[in-house]
Amino acid sequence: MNANSLVIAVDSSTTSTKAIVVDSGGIVVASAKVEFPMSTPKVDFYEQDPKDWWASTNEAIGKAVSGLSQKDRERIEFVCATIQRQSFALVDKNAEPLRPGILWLDGRAADQVHKYGSERVHEISGFQPDTTPSIYKIAWLKENEPESLQAAHKIVGVHGYLTYAMTGEWVDSVATADSLGLLDSAKLEYSDELIDLIGIQRSQLADLVPAASVIAPIKKTVLSGWGIKHPVQLVASCGDGQAAALGAGAIGTDEAYLNMGTALVAGVHSPNYLTADVYRTDIAGIPGQYVLEIVQNSGAHLAGWFRQELGDPALGGRPDPALDAAASKVPAGCGGLVTMPYWNAVQSPYWDPIAHGAIVGLAGAYGRAEIYRSILEGISLTMASNLRQLEESTGVPIKSVRVMGGGQRSTLWRQIMTDCIGVPLTACETEEVSAMGAAVIAMSNTDAFDSVQDAAKAMAALGGTSEPNQKTHEIYRELAEIQDQVYPALKDVMVRQYEFSQKYPLR
Amino acid sequence: MNANSLVIAVDSSTTSTKAIVVDSGGIVVASAKVEFPMSTPKVDFYEQDPKDWWASTNEAIGKAVSGLSQKDRERIEFVCATIQRQSFALVDKNAEPLRPGILWLDGRAADQVHKYGSERVHEISGFQPDTTPSIYKIAWLKENEPESLQAAHKIVGVHGYLTYAMTGEWVDSVATADSLGLLDSAKLEYSDELIDLIGIQRSQLADLVPAASVIAPIKKTVLSGWGIKHPVQLVASCGDGQAAALGAGAIGTDEAYLNMGTALVAGVHSPNYLTADVYRTDIAGIPGQYVLEIVQNSGAHLAGWFRQELGDPALGGRPDPALDAAASKVPAGCGGLVTMPYWNAVQSPYWDPIAHGAIVGLAGAYGRAEIYRSILEGISLTMASNLRQLEESTGVPIKSVRVMGGGQRSTLWRQIMTDCIGVPLTACETEEVSAMGAAVIAMSNTDAFDSVQDAAKAMAALGGTSEPNQKTHEIYRELAEIQDQVYPALKDVMVRQYEFSQKYPLR
Repeated sequence: MNANSLVIAVDSSTTSTKAIVVDSGGIVVASAKVEFPMSTPKVDFYEQDPKDWWASTNEAIGKAVSGLSQKDRERIEFVCATIQRQSFALVDKNAEPLRPGILWLDGRAADQVHKYGSERVHEISGFQPDTTPSIYKIAWLKENEPESLQAAHKIVGVHGYLTYAMTGEWVDSVATADSLGLLDSAKLEYSDELIDLIGIQRSQLADLVPAASVIAPIKKTVLSGWGIKHPVQLVASCGDGQAAALGAGAIGTDEAYLNMGTALVAGVHSPNYLTADVYRTDIAGIPGQYVLEIVQNSGAHLAGWFRQELGDPALGGRPDPALDAAASKVPAGCGGLVTMPYWNAVQSPYWDPIAHGAIVGLAGAYGRAEIYRSILEGISLTMASNLRQLEESTGVPIKSVRVMGGGQRSTLWRQIMTDCIGVPLTACETEEVSAMGAAVIAMSNTDAFDSVQDAAKAMAALGGTSEPNQKTHEIYRELAEIQDQVYPALKDVMVRQYEFSQKYPLR
Repeated sequence: MNANSLVIAVDSSTTSTKAIVVDSGGIVVASAKVEFPMSTPKVDFYEQDPKDWWASTNEAIGKAVSGLSQKDRERIEFVCATIQRQSFALVDKNAEPLRPGILWLDGRAADQVHKYGSERVHEISGFQPDTTPSIYKIAWLKENEPESLQAAHKIVGVHGYLTYAMTGEWVDSVATADSLGLLDSAKLEYSDELIDLIGIQRSQLADLVPAASVIAPIKKTVLSGWGIKHPVQLVASCGDGQAAALGAGAIGTDEAYLNMGTALVAGVHSPNYLTADVYRTDIAGIPGQYVLEIVQNSGAHLAGWFRQELGDPALGGRPDPALDAAASKVPAGCGGLVTMPYWNAVQSPYWDPIAHGAIVGLAGAYGRAEIYRSILEGISLTMASNLRQLEESTGVPIKSVRVMGGGQRSTLWRQIMTDCIGVPLTACETEEVSAMGAAVIAMSNTDAFDSVQDAAKAMAALGGTSEPNQKTHEIYRELAEIQDQVYPALKDVMVRQYEFSQKYPLR
């Protein structure tokens, strides 16, 4: 094992680009972060200038490397950049953007989801009909801006865009391009059926290479801008969700990762291509594998919403230790109070964009602490239920969970989550876990490791483990069965609420 | 018309007895109030010493009369006492209580409701199976304290108990005894079928007289204790709910009363005996008539709960003008957010003791003001829906509503209620409206009036009228249709929540 190699790993996210320089032990020896803006030209429209994707990456890497000695700079062997998924750009032959990039959270294509989305599209691409995958937004462009779509030399995601900037080649990784929603993911190549469905040309898409493979040498002009004089190669990455799994060292089929962030994202690796309602199927950073990914958009954001809107106004939504303490004294299950946590619609397992949240079973005996606890339980029960459905699909029981994100810092919520899921939760102590996932992929190409898996095991930094209380877990199992009934019961009511809101909007 | 008469009217409620001395114009010339305790020997058990019913009445009348000149005392012609309904005592031949009185809110008889309650019992008595009517608690005594029930010379409600104390006769009004749940209300007499159902003797019940009839002279010893030397007669009253209708002057079949108190109670008079799910059928204070009575136990109490539990802690649940102001700026219908206001179970129209509340349609855009408004709308939409079901049953559209109680003091809530119901709401300015109803009944026996109706029209003090905004009313009609779907949708979920709460209680 060669412990001398360094790699540059990038996480180009929706609000900023982070660059870290990492050694084979997972130690971050240098880092830098550059923020960039987003614009919202209309309600539900979210755009960025693709040039910012590259400018921020270039600047962040330059800054990170600038802190290294010449000797350390010479140790750098590879660069690998994980990215915000589904966001894409239309560019001409000179890589000039023809219009702003359209982001993953952009909701303009609701009609196109309805028109082109189907179970068939899910089977092929791995993605449920939903406004997130690029395919529906490309279809929106076809209908609303046909001239820019037709003029596009390439339609590329962030990874493809950065790859061209660094290597001059229109190449993308299967594990980043998959989020365009245009791949036959089982075959790891573009689907003619999906390309024809929305009427674009195969030639408008970048060529695909396997995840974790070496794409090409990085251009000397680029390297010299970073103060690097020797050859460094670019490695094909994966999306930031899959990268987080690697950064946390969750590589087994029975070893889940769970990000308790603004949204909740969890999943497992799978050597087989599987699809199910409860997860979307990403192509993994481990070559030939997949990540089965659960998404709940109402995560830590919802706990914060409660504190902001229904907590003590004097605290302005900040964490409230007294509220946590009071909620920790409420018996598990809150006497049967059930929160359906779909404040930001529901993704796993129903993928219903018009669903909303509900609190069911309110009585005079409930107060702020009980309702806050019920919200934390509601989010956690939903995650536990989603993980059980994932287990049913894979046939592999989950034995442990690597947990990350701001939400796990709440002792109360972390224990509720552990008790709901019923397996040990081990903290991931890496700060920039998606960037570390990209570092794992890069480092797997050095002499230090034989595989992405080996690199992930060695480089993940783990902290303490929460053990589930089995009696509490049983209580939550019973409550989860009740919670599972709420969405089917209220589905029709929510359709009518949606129609009402279109006629008489809140704002 | 003889404007010289005075009457003494009493409202013997659950926490206190109020006595007022009133003239034929509805002017209160003297008043007094005496509080008395309640005991809760077990969870859901609520009892009182029947002697306190009489002692507080005796003391309150004595205090009220003590403020009158001798000349005014001589003007007093009648006494009439409205009472807390359904509460009853077991007494021996000397009127000594054999055990504490069991109150209307006592919930011990849930099993007996299940065992003896039926649609047949509802048809005969006018009361849905529910823990409120005395019949189920008498059945509980039969099973749990057979010796005290068997030893009872009389089983009497508060009115019968007070009548004996004042006249020495075991006589009750049909319009107060009805709340025992043992009357064939269409026939205005006891039902042998219901008496046999729970296995008591007809001789254990007081004799019945029509509402508003003169029962008997009050004993000289009692009168002299009040400082009254001339003969005064006791008039047969009605329950406090029916009395409130009279005190507000709501006497027509198209003229509803609405008490926006801790609970919400509303209704209309009906010359015919009708039963329906949405109302319970009381015998009215107007002889030969009925009151069709809607009950919603979660009224102003629920708005207070929100302010206490989810409002600004600095205010401790007190009215919050800033919250009202913010809520008044939220568009009617809150963008489709729906609150099912069954915090204290549901009475009209489902009479389901295990139902609880729900807030459906929550999203990040909602905050404290929106949710508070949704709660006020939820209570009001439910009332509007209940009144519509009542209209369907009677075939008589409601043209106006007399409104009373603390809730109407909120300009916001009163306007929401007006817009939900869709007819003008006129404030009732009488402070003690149930006591005024008893005064109306008493005064109808003087030369001043020919009927209870005439007395009610003359004695009710009315204030301002809120007019409905028809456009807002249409919005609320649409939202009410959605709200009407929520209980049926969640009924099974709530059954399971109840079972869960029995296994894993909140406290």
